[in-house]
This record gives sequence, structure tokens and C-alpha cells, in this order.
Amino acid sequence: MTVDCCTMIVFGGTGDLAHRKLAPALYNMHLEGLLPDQFQMIGLGRKEKSDNQYRKELAASVEEYSASSWDAGRWAELENRLYYQAGDLRDNQTYETLRDKADHINIESSDDYNILYYLAVAPQYFPLAASKLKRHQRTPRGGGWRRIMIEKPFGYDLKTASELNSNLTAAFKEDSIYRVDHYLGKEMLQNILTIRFANSLFEPLWNNRFIDSVQISALEKEGIGDRGRYYDRAGAMRDMFQSHLLQMLAVTAMEPPLVKSVEAIKDEKLMLLKAVNPGSMDNGNGGIVLGQYGGYLEEKDIRSRSLTETYAAVKLEIDNDRWRGVPFYLRTGKKLHDKLAKIVIQFKKPPDIYDGELGEKLKQAEGTLENLLTLKIQPSEGVVFQFNIKKPGTVDQIAPAAMDFCQPCAYAINTPEAYEYLLTDAMKGDPARFTTWSEIEAAWKLTDGLYSHFKDTRGQVHLYEQGSRGPAEAEQMLEKDGRRWWES
Amino acid sequence: MTVDCCTMIVFGGTGDLAHRKLAPALYNMHLEGLLPDQFQMIGLGRKEKSDNQYRKELAASVEEYSASSWDAGRWAELENRLYYQAGDLRDNQTYETLRDKADHINIESSDDYNILYYLAVAPQYFPLAASKLKRHQRTPRGGGWRRIMIEKPFGYDLKTASELNSNLTAAFKEDSIYRVDHYLGKEMLQNILTIRFANSLFEPLWNNRFIDSVQISALEKEGIGDRGRYYDRAGAMRDMFQSHLLQMLAVTAMEPPLVKSVEAIKDEKLMLLKAVNPGSMDNGNGGIVLGQYGGYLEEKDIRSRSLTETYAAVKLEIDNDRWRGVPFYLRTGKKLHDKLAKIVIQFKKPPDIYDGELGEKLKQAEGTLENLLTLKIQPSEGVVFQFNIKKPGTVDQIAPAAMDFCQPCAYAINTPEAYEYLLTDAMKGDPARFTTWSEIEAAWKLTDGLYSHFKDTRGQVHLYEQGSRGPAEAEQMLEKDGRRWWES
Repeated sequence: MTVDCCTMIVFGGTGDLAHRKLAPALYNMHLEGLLPDQFQMIGLGRKEKSDNQYRKELAASVEEYSASSWDAGRWAELENRLYYQAGDLRDNQTYETLRDKADHINIESSDDYNILYYLAVAPQYFPLAASKLKRHQRTPRGGGWRRIMIEKPFGYDLKTASELNSNLTAAFKEDSIYRVDHYLGKEMLQNILTIRFANSLFEPLWNNRFIDSVQISALEKEGIGDRGRYYDRAGAMRDMFQSHLLQMLAVTAMEPPLVKSVEAIKDEKLMLLKAVNPGSMDNGNGGIVLGQYGGYLEEKDIRSRSLTETYAAVKLEIDNDRWRGVPFYLRTGKKLHDKLAKIVIQFKKPPDIYDGELGEKLKQAEGTLENLLTLKIQPSEGVVFQFNIKKPGTVDQIAPAAMDFCQPCAYAINTPEAYEYLLTDAMKGDPARFTTWSEIEAAWKLTDGLYSHFKDTRGQVHLYEQGSRGPAEAEQMLEKDGRRWWES
Repeated sequence: MTVDCCTMIVFGGTGDLAHRKLAPALYNMHLEGLLPDQFQMIGLGRKEKSDNQYRKELAASVEEYSASSWDAGRWAELENRLYYQAGDLRDNQTYETLRDKADHINIESSDDYNILYYLAVAPQYFPLAASKLKRHQRTPRGGGWRRIMIEKPFGYDLKTASELNSNLTAAFKEDSIYRVDHYLGKEMLQNILTIRFANSLFEPLWNNRFIDSVQISALEKEGIGDRGRYYDRAGAMRDMFQSHLLQMLAVTAMEPPLVKSVEAIKDEKLMLLKAVNPGSMDNGNGGIVLGQYGGYLEEKDIRSRSLTETYAAVKLEIDNDRWRGVPFYLRTGKKLHDKLAKIVIQFKKPPDIYDGELGEKLKQAEGTLENLLTLKIQPSEGVVFQFNIKKPGTVDQIAPAAMDFCQPCAYAINTPEAYEYLLTDAMKGDPARFTTWSEIEAAWKLTDGLYSHFKDTRGQVHLYEQGSRGPAEAEQMLEKDGRRWWES
């Protein structure tokens, strides 16, 4: 696929996302020759300013945030293609003006130029912007395309997500809607697919006969920052569980796709999400633990006496032949002791037949001798494999040996470099990194089901200390099952 | 088990083994308090010398070869318990004298003291010494025991081995015969047992459904040294294959023992050796390749135009449900490019279903992407595991990742420290580190069968260069099967 020429229109062109991620990404794409010749960008913002002023502001951000070294000459080549338009996205007039501006800067090209919209604005404006775009955008003649990129949250529950989706699909075809979910990035997907399917060792063991349990964690040290207005309405379940954790679950647990096409993989992920049964999880162990960090109520824009959770731990069972009986423990939270995202596959202990001398040794070294396969996603990518060897130099001591395939290769998912990939894919029309409505719908059904279960069982939101491992109840959930969270 | 008091009688008390291994081992045992209170040692040699002179000679050797630091005071405590006796083991009188000497130094203890004989002499003297011991040793009254330790070679073929065994068992009960095979050491055995059975990951894959092939190597850089008289009669098949390689094969491929007793493990090893079918190996690929290094004929004590092999590579199939169809490639040799002993389990490639994009990547990186589990035995113990991960920092490149669990933990099997264990076990009466006649018998049957097959097919002994990987024909044996030897 080659990248067509296009005009990119950024709603929220003066916001954080545009400055810290999109502009540095465009600059890098220019340096690497990835931008199409006919590319232009229009940033939409509320304040009046000239194109030149906007360019200067973006230049400062690129200099600060880009991983590439600053080259004023190369920037000069790019900045001529960056424009500014003042306007409020709630006004119809804004859309007319944008259309004219886009026509104007494409005056020398044919009428059917392509447009990539990027909604870098608060999520409550997504439906409005979509419906106004439907009314005001010109239907392209000939082969020109209209695409739209948005980032999560995709709604606050199934109902609001469906409404948003109706608005989006009224204006854009499903295959023209690019929903960004960074954890879904090809990197993470490919990492897990490679481990599972490029080795003959793991797939035969990837089932309830050999796997004891699976843990999926996305932990953060930071708090909610200045996202209180959004976050207090969402909480950890909607902000992280519905999207990132369920994506990680789907890729880890899905059936092998029949072919390795993007379509087949998405189908399998969807099937997996549908196989999770929210009713079957509790088993008297408490299937959901929610927590809120101490001091959350003092954060900016938080409702007084808010019960919004900043931590969630969920125990799931997948109701299919591969996984029946294997608990999946998922957790996410803010203001925790560590920042990481990882998946830990815990294999069953060796059978009782080896209970003799060797079994005694195993018991002596209790707790350290599980076979663990850890897929690290953040802050660095890698694979850690722990298994047991005879302690070298001894006759019959057993020692766990762990290997880490990758220490220095930090590759953050949410960097300008990641946006290069995302923008390039959207310009090319490659949907692999993006999530579909069916997946979002299935994830919301599951999340709503869990919330209902939580409320039906009169679940409480537990306070936890900042910098801790989260509420003690989340530890107890595993302890009751004879397990523990695998930290670091 | 506690160690009884005993008198150790070393035939070949002035030889290399006694000086370099046994005396340092006794010194270390003394330092560590492992020697029984009533311990004495009598070294038998042909030259006349006093106890004191013998003690001085041993002291010099201990100072040179012991890994422990020299402590003249501690040595003085030990040397009073070391005696010398001159005599020829072919003379009956020698045995009478030895008996009197042992009686004399045990004069203060009861009549039924224990005796541990160690035959540290050339193997051709084993049958003679055993039959003379039968005739001349006093039957102990009460509970005193008589044990004998010998080191391989245990015969040159099934016939000579059976003769040796008849001589030994005429004088000693089977459970009083301690046959030392260093590769059988608990260390190696326990290493492989731990990998296989203290992990839940490997045993489910340990069969012909998942394993492509197994390679067992014991390579040496050295030549035959001054062992020409023995070696030229034996060759690599009898010297290494019959003992070390088949022991490694047995532990790697045996069925899981029902209990982890020494007895049960020995039974399973024996069953495994019996399941190897010497007739089924060739398959037109040449089941045996023998080689001789250039310059071998000029070594000391080698017959002119000797066809003795210093290299052997053998392809075996194990005729049971677990292994049918999996080739086992075994090789050993002298004057090669490397010194190592290891077992490599090569797993099958992932199934064809992943032939698409991922399959292409796999093909591009051809030859490096097998899943390999390597059990390192010498020069250092360890486990290396190679599998495939997504190359970190890239979107979809695949890279093999190998981990080595142990670099600095060299633990040589044939050291004085190893002899400490061996002597302690023999004094205790613990047979775990020693090999049984049934195993030796099965190994000789197999080795004799291979030799017959080699001669029936008019196999040739190929010349190879010193410092090379052995004869090209051994490479070709694997190439014909679409495989290669895994070096280093």
C-alpha cells in the first residue's frame, strides 16, 4: 500500500496531544520520507492566531518532545504545510470555514483530495463533531476518501458507546473509522503472537491441562493528573479494564487464527471476549475488587464523596474447552508501587508422581518454583522465563532460574514514534493497529456485566495507600485461591 | 546412613589415580570431617618403600592437586593413618601380606573390620585381582563388609565384560561392587531429572509428537595421551560410547520412574537401553560413522596400521511409543575443535498453519529459529534455552533469544571433589552414583550390535584433521536428514 496525498485536519490542534505527539510524529515522518508529497495539516483551535504563530508554537514542541534531533532546515520544509484555523467545533460555521480552507490549500490538486480527521479533543465532543462533519463535509467525488481517527474512551458504557458509534457510522463507513488503542499496537500483538505461534514449545501447553492461571497487569505510579473531569466519570474499569486489559486478554487467550490475516485475528479476539461469562467468576472468592487511592477526593475536578475506583482487580473464567477452569486475574490501578504492563502465564506444578525426594526439595523452596512465562509490555518489552534447574555445583539442590530476554530495549507504546506508525497506517488505510466496533461492543457488554455483578453483590470500593500494591482485598482474592500476584 | 570405620586398600597405590585423585580426596574428606574415626588406608605398590616415604610422596601430591589449601598440621593428623605395602598383585603372597598388615593396623579393633578395595590399576588386572581376593581374603565374621571399587572400562565387549563380572561376583556380592562411571554422577543425573520432572513445562513435550531429534555429544580436544596400550584396543565406541554416551542417552530418554528411588531409576534406564534396536538405525543414511585423527598412528603404543576409531557418530532409534521416529544422534571423539559434553533437544518447527506472513519471517532467518533446549554437562553445568521472540523495538521481526543459566559455575566431574563423593558413598554403602551389571550388559549388547552392523555394512574408518569437527561423513549423516550438529 502506498500513502495517498491527504489533508489532515486536527480538532484540538492546539492541545496537548497535537503538541506532544502529533507534531513530533509528523516531523519524524517528514525526516524519514514517510509523508506523502501532497500532505497538509490544518490545526483547529479556539483562539485566533496566524499560521506563522501556530508553526512557531509547534516548532517549540517538536524541539522539546521529538526523539529525533532538531533540524531547523528540515522543519522549514515541513512547516509550510501546516496551517491554522480558529473556530469552535460546536459552531456549524467552523465546518464551512474548514472546508473552504482545505479547498483553498488543495486548490492546485483535483477536487477529490483525501481528508484524515483527527479528533484530539475531549471525548464528549466526539458525537457532536461526527454529526456535524456528516452534515457539512463535502462528499468526495471520484476516489477521494474521508477517514476519522479517535482515541479511547469510546463511550462510558455500552449505551453511550453505541450512541457514539451511531454518530460516527452515520458520517463514516466502519472501515473509515480508525479507533486508536495503544495497547492493541502491532508491537504487543506481534509479541504475543510470536511467542505463541513462532515456537513449537508453547502452543501445546497453552490450555487448561497445563496452565494453572494467567495474570494480566497494567499498573501505574501516576495519579489521574488533570484528567479528573473525565476520570471521575470513568474510573479504572472503564478507563483501563474495558480497553487495555481486555485487549491483552483477548490476544493471550484467543484460539490460533486459521490464517494470520488481520481479519482472522480480529475474529478470534472477538470470539474470545464473547466466551467470557461474567456470571461465572465469583465462586465465593469475590470476583471483583475495586479500590480508590487515599487523596483521590482532593484531586482536581473530583466530585465530593466520589466512589469512582482508581484500582480494579477482576477474576474471569473463559467458558470454552481450552480455558474452562483456568482463572484469569486482571488488575489495573493508579498511584501504585510500580509502573508496568505484563502478562504472566503460570503453569501447573509437576504431577504428584514426583513427590518423593524431589517433591520435598520443591516444598522446601516453596513459592519460588512455579514455571512462569512473563510477557513484558511496559516499560520495556521482553520475555522472562522461570523454570527449575539443579543448582549448579550442588548434588541435589533445586533452584529457579529466570531469564530476561530484554533489559535495555525500552519501547514505550505511547510515544511520538508510536504515532508515526498510527498516522502512516491510517493514511495507508491499514486497519491492523485499530480496534473495531464489534470488539468495543463485546468489551462493553462484559464490563457492564461486571459492574452489574459488583452492584448486585453490594461490592465496596476499598481505600488504599498511595504507592502501595492496592487494596488488601485484591491480595486476598488470590490468597483464597492459593495463589499470589507475581510482582516485578 | 553413617559411615562405618573401614580400611581402604588401594591397588595401584603409587599410580596417577591414587596421587592425583584419591589422596587429595581423602585429605579433603579429613578437613571436612567426613572420614570415619577408625579409617586407615594401605597403598599397594611394586617398589619397596617405607610408610614415611609413601606419606611424603602423597603429601607432595595433595599439596599440588588438592583444591583445598595446604595445612601441614591437618595433613599430619591424616598421614598417620596412611600405610604402604610393597607387592605384586600377581603374587599370592601379596594378598597374605596385605591381610596381615590390615589385621595389624586394626589390632585394637574387633575382628570384623570393614575393607574397601580400590582397583586403581590397569583394567587387565581386574579379573586377576578379583579372583585372588576371593581366594585370600578372610571372610569377615559378624557384620563387617568387603566392598570393591573399580573404574571403567568394564571389559572390551560383552564377552570380556561378562568374564570380568564372573570374577568379580565370585568374590563379591553384586551390591558390594561399586563401578564408577563419572558421567553417571548424581550431578548429571539430577540435572536432567530436575529439568524433566521438577518443571511442568518439559515433560508434556518430551516425546515424538513435539521433539524433532536429540543430539548427545562428548567431545574432547585432547588426544589419547599415554593411554595408547588401552585405547588402541578399545577405541571411541568402547571407551566413550558404551559408557558415557549411553548413560546420557538413558537418563534423557527413559520413562519417568514410578517413584524417585535409585532402584526405579536404574530400572527405567535399563528398559530404555533395551528398547534401542541396533537394526533399525541405518535407513540408508549410514547409521555409524567412525573416524581416526591424523597422527594417531604415531602416538605411543599404537599398533602399526591400526584401524581403531578415535571418533564415533551414531544414529539411533528407540523403539517405544514415546520415541519411535525420533533420531538420536550421539557422537564422541578426541582431538576435536572443542571440549564439551551436552545434550541438545531439538523441538519440531511450528505447524504449517502459521505459514503466512510469520512463516515468511521464519524462512528469512533460516537455520537459527529452532526451539532448542541444551543441557550442558561439561565444562560447565547449565541449561540453554533458545526460542523465538519478536525482535524488541521492531514491529514484526523475529529473533531467536537464547539464555544460559550458568556460565561461571564450572563443576568438573572428574576432580578430587568428585572422588570425595564417590568414596563417601562407597563407605556408606549408597549405590546411587554407581552403575550395575545389568546396565553394563545392556550397553555392551548394544555396542556389540552396532559394531557388527558396522562390519556387516563394510564401514570405513575415516581420517580427520586434528582440531576439526571430525570426519565430513558425520556432518553428512545429519545433512542427509535435513539437520546439522549444534556446535558450541
